[in-house]
This record gives sequence, structure tokens and C-alpha cells, in this order.
Amino acid sequence: MIDLRSDTVTKPTMAMRQAALEAEVGDDVYEEDPTVKKLEDKAAEMLGKEAALFVTSGTQGNQIAVLTHCNPGDEVLLDANAHLFLYEGASMSALAGVQPRTIQGERGVMNPEEVKAAIRPDDIHFPETSLICLENTHNKAGGVVVPLENMQEIYGIAREAGVPVHLDGARLFNASVASGISLQRYADQTDTVQVCLSKGLGAPIGSIIAGSYEFIQKARKWRKRLGGGMRQVGMVAAPAYVALTTMVDRLKVDHDHARKLANGLQVVQGLTIEKVETNIVLVHVDGIDETAETFLEEIKRDGILAVPFGPTTVRFVTNYDVSEKDIDTVIDRVLARFAF
Amino acid sequence: MIDLRSDTVTKPTMAMRQAALEAEVGDDVYEEDPTVKKLEDKAAEMLGKEAALFVTSGTQGNQIAVLTHCNPGDEVLLDANAHLFLYEGASMSALAGVQPRTIQGERGVMNPEEVKAAIRPDDIHFPETSLICLENTHNKAGGVVVPLENMQEIYGIAREAGVPVHLDGARLFNASVASGISLQRYADQTDTVQVCLSKGLGAPIGSIIAGSYEFIQKARKWRKRLGGGMRQVGMVAAPAYVALTTMVDRLKVDHDHARKLANGLQVVQGLTIEKVETNIVLVHVDGIDETAETFLEEIKRDGILAVPFGPTTVRFVTNYDVSEKDIDTVIDRVLARFAF
Amino acid sequence: MIDLRSDTVTKPTMAMRQAALEAEVGDDVYEEDPTVKKLEDKAAEMLGKEAALFVTSGTQGNQIAVLTHCNPGDEVLLDANAHLFLYEGASMSALAGVQPRTIQGERGVMNPEEVKAAIRPDDIHFPETSLICLENTHNKAGGVVVPLENMQEIYGIAREAGVPVHLDGARLFNASVASGISLQRYADQTDTVQVCLSKGLGAPIGSIIAGSYEFIQKARKWRKRLGGGMRQVGMVAAPAYVALTTMVDRLKVDHDHARKLANGLQVVQGLTIEKVETNIVLVHVDGIDETAETFLEEIKRDGILAVPFGPTTVRFVTNYDVSEKDIDTVIDRVLARFAF
Amino acid sequence: MIDLRSDTVTKPTMAMRQAALEAEVGDDVYEEDPTVKKLEDKAAEMLGKEAALFVTSGTQGNQIAVLTHCNPGDEVLLDANAHLFLYEGASMSALAGVQPRTIQGERGVMNPEEVKAAIRPDDIHFPETSLICLENTHNKAGGVVVPLENMQEIYGIAREAGVPVHLDGARLFNASVASGISLQRYADQTDTVQVCLSKGLGAPIGSIIAGSYEFIQKARKWRKRLGGGMRQVGMVAAPAYVALTTMVDRLKVDHDHARKLANGLQVVQGLTIEKVETNIVLVHVDGIDETAETFLEEIKRDGILAVPFGPTTVRFVTNYDVSEKDIDTVIDRVLARFAF
Repeated sequence: MIDLRSDTVTKPTMAMRQAALEAEVGDDVYEEDPTVKKLEDKAAEMLGKEAALFVTSGTQGNQIAVLTHCNPGDEVLLDANAHLFLYEGASMSALAGVQPRTIQGERGVMNPEEVKAAIRPDDIHFPETSLICLENTHNKAGGVVVPLENMQEIYGIAREAGVPVHLDGARLFNASVASGISLQRYADQTDTVQVCLSKGLGAPIGSIIAGSYEFIQKARKWRKRLGGGMRQVGMVAAPAYVALTTMVDRLKVDHDHARKLANGLQVVQGLTIEKVETNIVLVHVDGIDETAETFLEEIKRDGILAVPFGPTTVRFVTNYDVSEKDIDTVIDRVLARFAF
Repeated sequence: MIDLRSDTVTKPTMAMRQAALEAEVGDDVYEEDPTVKKLEDKAAEMLGKEAALFVTSGTQGNQIAVLTHCNPGDEVLLDANAHLFLYEGASMSALAGVQPRTIQGERGVMNPEEVKAAIRPDDIHFPETSLICLENTHNKAGGVVVPLENMQEIYGIAREAGVPVHLDGARLFNASVASGISLQRYADQTDTVQVCLSKGLGAPIGSIIAGSYEFIQKARKWRKRLGGGMRQVGMVAAPAYVALTTMVDRLKVDHDHARKLANGLQVVQGLTIEKVETNIVLVHVDGIDETAETFLEEIKRDGILAVPFGPTTVRFVTNYDVSEKDIDTVIDRVLARFAF
Repeated sequence: MIDLRSDTVTKPTMAMRQAALEAEVGDDVYEEDPTVKKLEDKAAEMLGKEAALFVTSGTQGNQIAVLTHCNPGDEVLLDANAHLFLYEGASMSALAGVQPRTIQGERGVMNPEEVKAAIRPDDIHFPETSLICLENTHNKAGGVVVPLENMQEIYGIAREAGVPVHLDGARLFNASVASGISLQRYADQTDTVQVCLSKGLGAPIGSIIAGSYEFIQKARKWRKRLGGGMRQVGMVAAPAYVALTTMVDRLKVDHDHARKLANGLQVVQGLTIEKVETNIVLVHVDGIDETAETFLEEIKRDGILAVPFGPTTVRFVTNYDVSEKDIDTVIDRVLARFAF
Repeated sequence: MIDLRSDTVTKPTMAMRQAALEAEVGDDVYEEDPTVKKLEDKAAEMLGKEAALFVTSGTQGNQIAVLTHCNPGDEVLLDANAHLFLYEGASMSALAGVQPRTIQGERGVMNPEEVKAAIRPDDIHFPETSLICLENTHNKAGGVVVPLENMQEIYGIAREAGVPVHLDGARLFNASVASGISLQRYADQTDTVQVCLSKGLGAPIGSIIAGSYEFIQKARKWRKRLGGGMRQVGMVAAPAYVALTTMVDRLKVDHDHARKLANGLQVVQGLTIEKVETNIVLVHVDGIDETAETFLEEIKRDGILAVPFGPTTVRFVTNYDVSEKDIDTVIDRVLARFAF
């Protein structure tokens, strides 16, 4: 099978496995695992933040950010298609007791004026706006790179209003590689940031949240409450360190593959393909009278896996385990089925 | 002052005060207050539900409904301008741990197809959709009467999906008087309903939630947890009973006053006035180069009170304590200030 | 029936009803009800606090205090038999997300050393101790007056540890009348205090929480979230004001009745009666081979109501609606049934 | 340093590291990791439950159990010294909104009659008792093996009352090895069970919760909400599998070491040592005029690590990385310092 469902499906490399084998470890609940510390320090440095914390998933990182920034009865502003809103089981309300207030962005990019207008004034009927969440690249919008200028404008508004900003940077590495803008410059426009090492970078497990020392100290306690305080974490941090330090640049290859795939599928009359900016290709299949479900079934018979992203939309994600030859094969097979 | 800020500002009538004086009472935590029982039975009957519960406010009624229908981590569908979402301090997330998912309605009326599309399928990433909330009349939209057909369509979708429907009927009496459709026919399109007795009906305090026996039994416990379990409640239930049984029909007068007010203000070039359906008049003042704030300050100097409903929108609510002569005065004074 | 189930069952007096009839009112959500303000100011003055807030019940007052003082994941120290722990539906955990940590007091009086030892040190495994709750008089212990010295010691410990103290003073008026110590001296030993007007004082509805201006401002928003923001509250505040200003001294009569009742029942061989300090009489009925249930059934046939307070314990509460003659009747009938 | 702080500090064995290197993996959010499945199946079989779920820590397993069994406003019965109550940051209240109700056990063993008496009857003031939690071995009590008969009695009571039982079996392997009673027989006395692989068994990371298919399905969603849904988990599950299948029997050695340590320290006049049942040794140091803090500082200078377990109590935990010779060294050094 050629697996284009997500960049989360990538298998760890032999270098990562070897790193796990040799990892120097300690009990991380006692903050004694040297490999975890090395990973956290490196991540903090790359993101330009005072401190970083290893967590088991992007969802955990995002939820810890919400729990640390907010109090129950607060309101969080974010795009209507944000992962934090759509795909995290309503955790921000379930765990932190906060209400999401969504803004309909353009391909994941919120209008700063709308963000500003949505910040609540002081009134007994209103929740307090206590967090603005961004997502870059934006998954649901199709791997869109949110422009730095947009983030700057929103951060300016946020600071003026005294509201912190959190960045769901599950795929911030992709944004950085695609735009040539450093991680740090993106992270400078937010108070806290979460990045995933288990997506395009191929680590088996793990994400990072980064922010001020004070934030990370509070976050550590919320991580413990969620059960994310673990023991000899170096076994997982070691491959994650390999991912963080050796796998970023190669994301360019995934982006090239994604563009190639999009161009190839373009040939099929009736398919509408969203502009490709990183490693995600969104294909609308209604024009060939398919639903996401029927389309996926058919390509599965051809040995190709992708996921539904709406009733008539399909998402392909290029990743480390998919070669250029695989992309050619996918194009050939989809064309064979749907092009004529 | 002519107070058009809300229909909540009405003073209790002498009949209501007299009813309080003479109320037969008992300890309602023991369910021994005969006046409360009489009020609850009457309300249940009027709404066509098995049982009803007296609560201290519309917010309390709505929140108890959410707490009773939902579990933490669930999602609630409702209009983006619903009172439950905008004006209740994010309580549904703070208290019940549920995530609101908003749909942008047309003047408060949600498109049933959009409601249907927003109900979550089964997936480990998704919350479960466990409630749909409607609001009729719709406050933020300007006292709009949500059509019965719209409610019927949504209820059909909801039942098919196994999702209960709650109606925030804070001003359902206004909807009923305006449309000529009985309370019961509206309430038939929902599983539970909340109605306020302290708005147009003029009761000093109190709302009702109604639904099945089983629902009300669970709701009673949540009311206790919120501190809404009270003692000799007959003192409040008695005036509320007067309101429920004698004040409904007179809402027509408020509606006539609202229409008269709108027509009168129409004369001012530059004011845009939303279509009046019940007792609320929304006036957009940007066309006369005012903000809501400046406009309100100026009419306050003329002895007129209203409230801001957006940066350049002002809301007037006609009510029992405002006479036709008052309306004439308001029109005269606003025209004197802004018409020429 | 002679109703000794609780002091909550008292009916409002004619003076209270008359006050409701004549109450000057306004919309209290806009903070415009003069009678509410008068009541809150009077209560704040009597309790020696900067500000006070009218709430619908003791439970609501207590829960608002917890919500205002604490954050989720905090711990609250209180007696194992506190009303807040036993009788409020686990609200402090359900609404505020805090964990109660109970200390086994002696007849409701916690050992200050145990309180001190239970305050959590800083550790990633531990919740933060963010509130200590006292109760005076102590209901479950049988109306026990918690000594001022005990409160002083605990408050000293609390201040040293930077932990606020809340007093559930549902029956603080009884404590004050019994001990001759002013309300204010008790309230001086706590940061916030809740007192009920609907118990011995006979108001139909209502309690007060008092504390600093800042606390009350935050509390007002939590009251709104719980649905305790109401409209023409003067209708209820007026009788509550009558209760607060005219009914305190007469609690002495209830205390005398309680002592008389206890002395009278003492005659029955096998009954064990807890020392009476205020208006509550706890009677253990195992010595006469009864359960609380069977004992209550039998006296009910004699026209006497009380409540179970454990498998073989019965609670009688004297109150405004029970005369000395009623007490004599109760003694006579219980003796007739059980004394020989 | 000889590290006796906890059995969590053990380093993974080479066999475990090798297993990580070679692990067959897949994306576990898609339930496609074969090594995770193998581990979960093996654990379910050993525990005699229908299904099992891999989680990142004992705390996560326990909290998922509470979230899955309970609703907000419920009450959970457990020992006053349970890990779930003392050491998990008040998570059960913060995340699940449930109130713990503690019972003072005898060395961690609750009296079944007290458990029975604490189950709440139906009353509007009361939370619903929705879970009973046990812990075996009991950490705070000093590694005590809770007798199977005690668990049977409590489970009988629980079933009669319709209340589920959860077992915090973080060290259930120790209980089983010490008592000769199989894991399954213990787990038969509960509805759900959590066992840690990262303590005495030496896995770097991971715990298991087991129960019915339906429970595990719901638990999987709560794990996702907490951020415990991870990707190529086989890298961690493989060493955990080695731990589960090869490291249980050797716990006997830890128990022997613990007994040896206790006997050795007995010689020091003034030290009081709790009866050793498994791998934990509790030493009370007040008899030699030390506090836990001063005692720990002094032995640290001798190269020995342990932890405070109260103001004058110290806990030693024997583990895989501590040899018999290490134990001899510890005894020698402690005697040299304190025996004369």
C-alpha cells in the first residue's frame, strides 16, 4: 500500500531506532532524564523560547497550553477549522472549561479585524477572552502557510488587549521550509507554541510545547495531571531528537512530491485541487460524481490510502515513507481509473 | 426616564405584589410549596410537556438544560448569535464541559441543512453532538420569530440523528403572540424548553424549564447544585403565576409600540432599522455618523434609555412600563436631535 | 403537624409579606434594585466586610465562594461532616473542579494542627491547597458552636500559609446569639462568609456572601453563570431585610426550646441526646431498638416531623413556627410512646 | 549512588532496548500498531479481562478509569491514603468533576462495612456514588498486600449497590508475587484495573488499563482527549512487552532485598520499621531525633537516595537496579551513621 493518509504514519528510521537503543535515560518525573533535557533545550533554542516541554502528542501539547493559559468560563478565539476545535474531542471545554469562539478564516487565515472585534469587552454577561489560537500550517485548509504578516497583525492586537497567543504548530516545520522563514520568527509572534515531531519529521512519538519558564513550570503540572509525566522518556526523546535535528530540511522533498501529485491529478477532468503549499493535497471529487467515501474505496483497490476531509473532499499527505516513484504510481493509477 | 433597555426592567404590578403577600407557601426543597407546584403544573400544561421546574433566571434554565442533556466532551449546535453562546459567560463550557459549535444563521434562523452537516459522525477525534439549541424569538437578531417550519425541519433532523433539542424560549410568549401559533405547537418541536416570566410578562423573578418527567427529575438535582433549590418560593411563584396567566395577551401592545417606534424613527435619514417582528427594535446608527455609545449618551440626555447591541447598533425593547405616549415622546425627541 | 425537620420550613411573617408588597425594586442585573443594595449594605456592615452579595441559597453562596477562591485542580480543606462536603451534591468538584480533603473534626471542630499538616507543600504530584472551609454552627454535629479561639488558630495558620478561609455561616446567627460573640468577630477570622436568612431568621428565600470588594466583584460574575442573576429582586430582598434586622435576637427562644426538648426527651431510657448548644437536637435511638426510619414513622403518627441524620440518629430543629407549647406536646407524645 | 527512591527509576534492560530497536510498528491512532496490540492482548489475557489499553502512566490509566466510569457531580470512594487521592494533583476533580470521599483504612485496607455505609442513598442533596477505587499493593501504607478476601467483600458490596470497582494496581505484580495469588484472581474482584509496567518490571514507560470491551472503547476516546493517543507506539510497547513477559517473577528478589534491608536497619535503636510485605520499606526516624529531611540529607552524603513519606518517615523501594550487595552497603552505612 502507498499510504498517504497522514504524515503521522511514517515509520521511525534506523537512526532513530539506534538512538533509542543507546539513549542515556533517567526518571523524567524527577527531571533526571538527560536525553529529554537535551531535546527540550534544543527545541527551545530552535523556537527562540525560554523553555520547552516534551509531551506525548500535539493534542496533549495544545490542551496543556489551554489549561495553562485559561480559567474556566474564559473564551478562546480560533479559526472555525482549527484542529483544536474540530479534532480534539472538545477537550478544551471538557478539561479546561473554556468556550471556543470560532472565526471563519479564509483558507485557515483569520482576518485580524475580525479577531479584534471578537475580543470581549468587560461585561457581566461575557466570558473573558483569554487566548487566541493560531495554526500554521493549517491542516484542514490543506497545509496552507499562514503568512507571517497575518500572525504579526494578530499578535499586535492580542498584546494590546492583553490576550496571550498560542500557536498550534503541529506542522510549523513545513511552514518554515516552504516559506524560508525561520521557526523562531514564527514563534516570536506567539506566547507559546506546540510543534509535532511525529508528523513530517518522522519521530515515532512526541511533540514539544515551548514558552516562558513560568509557563512551562505550570504546564509541567498540567502534563502530570493528564498522565503525561513519564519515566525513562529518553527512549522516546532520543529518536525525537534525531527527527528534530536531521529531518527538517528533507520536508522540501515532501512538498515537491505534493506539488507533483497535484499537477498529475490535475489532468483528471472534474477533479478540483486546492493550491498546494506544503505536504497536503486536497482534492474535491464531486466533479467526477464521486463521494469521498467511494473515491477512497476505489483507490484503495489500487493500493492507495488517503482520508476523507468532508463529504466530497479527499486529503493526501506526502511523507517520508512515500517516494517519488510512489507518487508516479499514484498518479498513474488514479488517471487509469478516473481520467477517461 | 423612559426605559427601553430591556423588558426585564418592568416593575411588578400591584396584582403580583398582592399575590406575593397572600401566597400559600411551603419548603420547596421538600417539594412542599403549593404555589410553586401550581405554577409548574400550569406552565407544563401551557407548554404541552410532562413536567416543569421553576428556576431563578433564563440563564439558569438554559444551563440546567445543557447540564442535564450533555456530558463533558460533548458538542452543542446553536446559532452564532444565540444568547446561550454570547451572553451566558461561557457557562456551558465552564459548568458542563461542553463545546458550543456555532452556525451562522440568517437573522437567528439556522439553515437545517447546515445543522445536519454539523452533526458529528462517530470518530475518535470528534466530540459527540448531544444537543441542538434554538432561540425563539431571537434576541440578538432583533426579536425575530423563528418560523415553526424551520423548527420542524431541525427537529426532524435531530430526531433522526438521536440528538435532543432545547429551546431557549426566553421570549417565546412574544413569538406566540406575534405568530398566532400556540406555545405548545412551538414546544412540540423540542425536547425541552425554557421560558422567562420576568421579561415581557413582568414577573419580578423567574423562568420555567419544561420537558419529560425524567428530564425534570435530573434537572432538579442540577438546580440544587447551582444553588437554585430555595425555600418558601411561593412568594416569588405567586407573582410569576399572575404573569403567566394574565400578562401574555398584552404583549401585543408591546409589539404595536415597537412597530410604531420603528416607523417613527424611520423618518431620520441615515438610520437603518431592522424589520420589527415583536417587541425589539434594532437601529443602526452608523449612517448618521454616530456610534452606539455616542447615540445612547445623547438620547440619555433626553431621558431615554436603550442599550448598545454592537459598535454602531442600538436596541430598544418595548415593555409593560412603557406607554404609547412614551413611544411618541421617544420619537419626538430622537427626531428633534437627529432628523434635521 | 409540628414540623421540626429544619428551620428552613418556617413561613414568612406578615411583616415580611408586607415588605414584599411595598418593596422598592429595580433590575438587579443592572445593579439598580435599591432594596437589594440596602440589604447587601446592611449585611456587609453587620459582618464587618467591605461588600456583600445576595444569593438564592446557602449552597449557592458556598459554591460561589469556592468558584471565586479556587482554580481547577486545587484542594479545599474542610471537616468530614461539613455541609459543603456532605450535602451539596459534590458541586465543588462538579462546578469548580476542586478536590475536597476532609479532616475528621471533634463534633465539627477541626484540630488546627491537623489543618496545618494537611496544607500541601509544593510538589508536582500535589494539588495546591487554595481554601479552608469552616462551618459555624455546625449542622451535622448538632448545631455546635465552633469556638472563636479555634477559628482564630486556624485563621492564623491559613494566613501564614497564604490560604484563604471561607465560613459557611448558614447558622452563624445562632452561634452569635448562643455565644454572645458578635457576627463581626466571627467573620473577622475568615476572608469570606456566607449567612442564610431563610433558616432561623425566617426569610422566605436568600443568603448573603460577604468579603472584599474584589471578591464580591468576581463572585457576581460566578453568580450570573449559575443563573443567580435576577431581576426585581427587591421583592425577595425586602422580606430578607426584615429577617436580618428584626429576627436575630429571637433565636434565643429557639435555643431555649431546643434545650427544653432535649431535657424532656432525656427521660426516655435508652435515648442518647447530644449536648444542645443552639437550635438543633440530635437524638440517637439505637438504645431503644429503633432505627431513625422507624422512630420517625412512629412520631409522624403523633403529628411530629423530624429528619434522619444517620441510620439511628434523628435531628430536631426548633424554629420560629414552633411554640413552647408545641415543644411540650412533642415531649409528651414521645414519652407516651417510648418512655415506658 | 544507590537509588532507592522508587522502582520507577530503573533503567531499561538491553533486552528492552533491543526490542525497541526491532519493534514492528504502525500508527496506533489508527489502531495499526501490531506491537501495541500484542501487548494489550497479552495484558488483557493475564488480567482476565476482555480488553486492555496502553497508556503513558499509572496516573493516566487511573484518570481515564474515573473519566470513563463517572459523571460530574458523582462521588468516588477510596482510601484516605490512596495514590489517586494524594498524588495525582486532584485530577479526578479537575478533569472528571467528581468528588473523592475518603475512608481511613488500616494500612491501606478499607473496612468493607465502612465502604458500605459510605455509599450514598438517593437524595437531592447527595452526589451519586459511582466508583470505588482500591489500590494493591498500597504504596503509602508501605507496599501492603491488600488481602483478596477484603477485595472480595468490597466487590460483593459494590455489585449489590450497582457501583463499579476500579483497582489501581500500579504494583499489582508485587502483590501477586508476594501472595502467590494470580493477577487474574485479583482482577476478578474489580471491573477495571490499571497496572504499571514502568515500576518493578522496569519498562521505560507505560501502564495498562483493562476491562470490558465497552469500557475500553470509551476509555480510548478519553485517552485521546488527554493527549495519550500516540503514533508508532510499538517503540515503547516492545520494551513494555519484554517487561510484562519476563520481569514479573524477579520481583521476588526485590521483596527479599526489602526484607533484608528492614532487618538490617532494625538494629538501629530508635528506628521504627513498618512490616515489609513487598518491595517498600517505611522507616520512621523520629525515634532517633531526625526528620525525614535531615535523615535523607545524611544518607545522601553516604551515596544513598530515598524519599520522604511524611515529616519523620522515609521510604526505600528496592528495584531491579539495586543488588544484594547494594543493600548490604546501605545497611552498613546507615548503621555506621546512626547505630551508635
